Amino acid sequence: MSSKLTVDRAQSESVQEAVVSSILSERKVIDPDTYFDDNKPPANLRWANGRVSEFVAQQPKERPIALVTSGGTTVPLENNTVRFVDNFSAGTRGSSSAEQFLASGYAVIYLYRDQSLQPFNRHYSHNPDGVLGYLDIVDGKVVVKPEWAEQMHRDLELFKRYKNANQLLMVSFTTLSDYLFLLREISLILAPLGPRAMLYLAAAVSDFFIPTHIMAEHKIQSGSGDLTLRMNQVPKFLRPLVKNWVPRCFIISFKLETDSELLAPKARHALEKYGHQIVIANLLHTRKWQVWLFTNSEPEPYLLQISKEDIENNRDIEHYLVVELARRHQEYISNSNQL
Amino acid sequence: MSSKLTVDRAQSESVQEAVVSSILSERKVIDPDTYFDDNKPPANLRWANGRVSEFVAQQPKERPIALVTSGGTTVPLENNTVRFVDNFSAGTRGSSSAEQFLASGYAVIYLYRDQSLQPFNRHYSHNPDGVLGYLDIVDGKVVVKPEWAEQMHRDLELFKRYKNANQLLMVSFTTLSDYLFLLREISLILAPLGPRAMLYLAAAVSDFFIPTHIMAEHKIQSGSGDLTLRMNQVPKFLRPLVKNWVPRCFIISFKLETDSELLAPKARHALEKYGHQIVIANLLHTRKWQVWLFTNSEPEPYLLQISKEDIENNRDIEHYLVVELARRHQEYISNSNQL
Repeated sequence: MSSKLTVDRAQSESVQEAVVSSILSERKVIDPDTYFDDNKPPANLRWANGRVSEFVAQQPKERPIALVTSGGTTVPLENNTVRFVDNFSAGTRGSSSAEQFLASGYAVIYLYRDQSLQPFNRHYSHNPDGVLGYLDIVDGKVVVKPEWAEQMHRDLELFKRYKNANQLLMVSFTTLSDYLFLLREISLILAPLGPRAMLYLAAAVSDFFIPTHIMAEHKIQSGSGDLTLRMNQVPKFLRPLVKNWVPRCFIISFKLETDSELLAPKARHALEKYGHQIVIANLLHTRKWQVWLFTNSEPEPYLLQISKEDIENNRDIEHYLVVELARRHQEYISNSNQL
Repeated sequence: MSSKLTVDRAQSESVQEAVVSSILSERKVIDPDTYFDDNKPPANLRWANGRVSEFVAQQPKERPIALVTSGGTTVPLENNTVRFVDNFSAGTRGSSSAEQFLASGYAVIYLYRDQSLQPFNRHYSHNPDGVLGYLDIVDGKVVVKPEWAEQMHRDLELFKRYKNANQLLMVSFTTLSDYLFLLREISLILAPLGPRAMLYLAAAVSDFFIPTHIMAEHKIQSGSGDLTLRMNQVPKFLRPLVKNWVPRCFIISFKLETDSELLAPKARHALEKYGHQIVIANLLHTRKWQVWLFTNSEPEPYLLQISKEDIENNRDIEHYLVVELARRHQEYISNSNQL
């Protein structure tokens, strides 16, 4: 990566460091614990606490529970938010995986970015005519177009069944801050379940943010030419999550890169640093048919890929991935019980 | 606006200017015309050209045509895009206005951000259960829930009628670059229509971007601490649009601010600078019930606002706004014919 951006960044940093000494104290990565003191919790935090506690309490004792996070987080650039930095993620991985976890007998808490893909709904987001594109008027009544009728019936039936059986709970977020508060809250509720709970952290979390107190109050004006944004690194929340929030749960994190050479070293590094169970590594351009499972007990990653035929038959890689993860999760539960 | 960001920006700029002289040439606002030479056109540009030309040719001679732009543009931070800066806009103003223009007898070209609100579909995007939340299974068949049946029937009927009558054409974009290419292309097709064409530029266009050639190739790494992003100002495309692309059309631009003191001076400034017909000024937090119309012929802005009762009865401000604009557009057409 020899881009100019890198060079500029280094130059601007060294120059600023020499001059703007008063800002230096803000430049190191902040402590994950202090993050929650400095930021405002989302409006749905108390609701989520109540609903998740109730949901967990109502599950049969033998049923495993998965927290599936999905979609990208946003980082506001202004307090009166007009602009924000967004992380690319439609929520395909998370929404497809949630369906497979349900089919595998899990109770699923789906923590997703508002307006990103949801389980069962995910097939109905690509019509250029929107929702109405799936519908028609026949004999004065609104009906589903024939080409969608069968699939929509199946998806709606499953969606209703899982919701009515209390097997699926959906909680939404928008900003990085919303996500982190909700992740901690739900984790702490799952912690007492120990190995029975899985955390499947598929959401694309921002790496950089602008702390509230140095954020512009109003819309940034463009009259003065260029804009230089200095963003702080987001603290690595996987550390307190693994170490303090849910130390006995089964934790799966993701690593998405565009440069294939960085993938394995970064996956290994995460495992060593945080000490959780699995890193699923994938590349932006092949993520729909190839993923690698990294663990601390296996010297080589476990490659999972689907064929062209699978893709043509609308079979998702998440089908195989979740079956494999559920198997490993069962082993983890058994091993924990033997201790 | 006494935020630290402003201070940092000034400091960092002055410091950088003294040191990083090689970058100076990139720091001035680029010429709108050269923008199109340096950036790649969107995949749907040729399709859009064909469809818009056909659409315009098929309209009855007396029918006015409105190009309605809607939704926010994104600015990629990396060439292999994982992150981007987004401008806040759900597309409420644009989608609601498009419906009103259709009701007022206009042919509408709706240039909108992919996944943002669309006319008639806009009422079906807020259900936490997604598309499936509007549907139910009764006697083994998928049907619209009773509470939505009437409205959905009305919206679907109107949507189908306008589409079948060739009165509504939808063209989508995602990035700033997509938007600018499509805006120019469609403008040039509308130009020969002169006063009969209105441009209603409600899209929230990014003010800053990172030129392709200095963009990072791969996902920006967070290991090295802070990130400093230097973004260039987007050239003001309203200038060539008014002056060169559609000099005889009726042009309406928008000014959205969060600071009320900036609103009037910025609206006046835009009118003086570009010389088009109307600036619609609005504040982020009151935009759904208050807008001000600024023109060069009136010393005071024309205030348009709706009542609490209107809002409770689901009446949009766009209803009154579009009626007022259509009236002014007719005057403009009449005056142009008398010349």
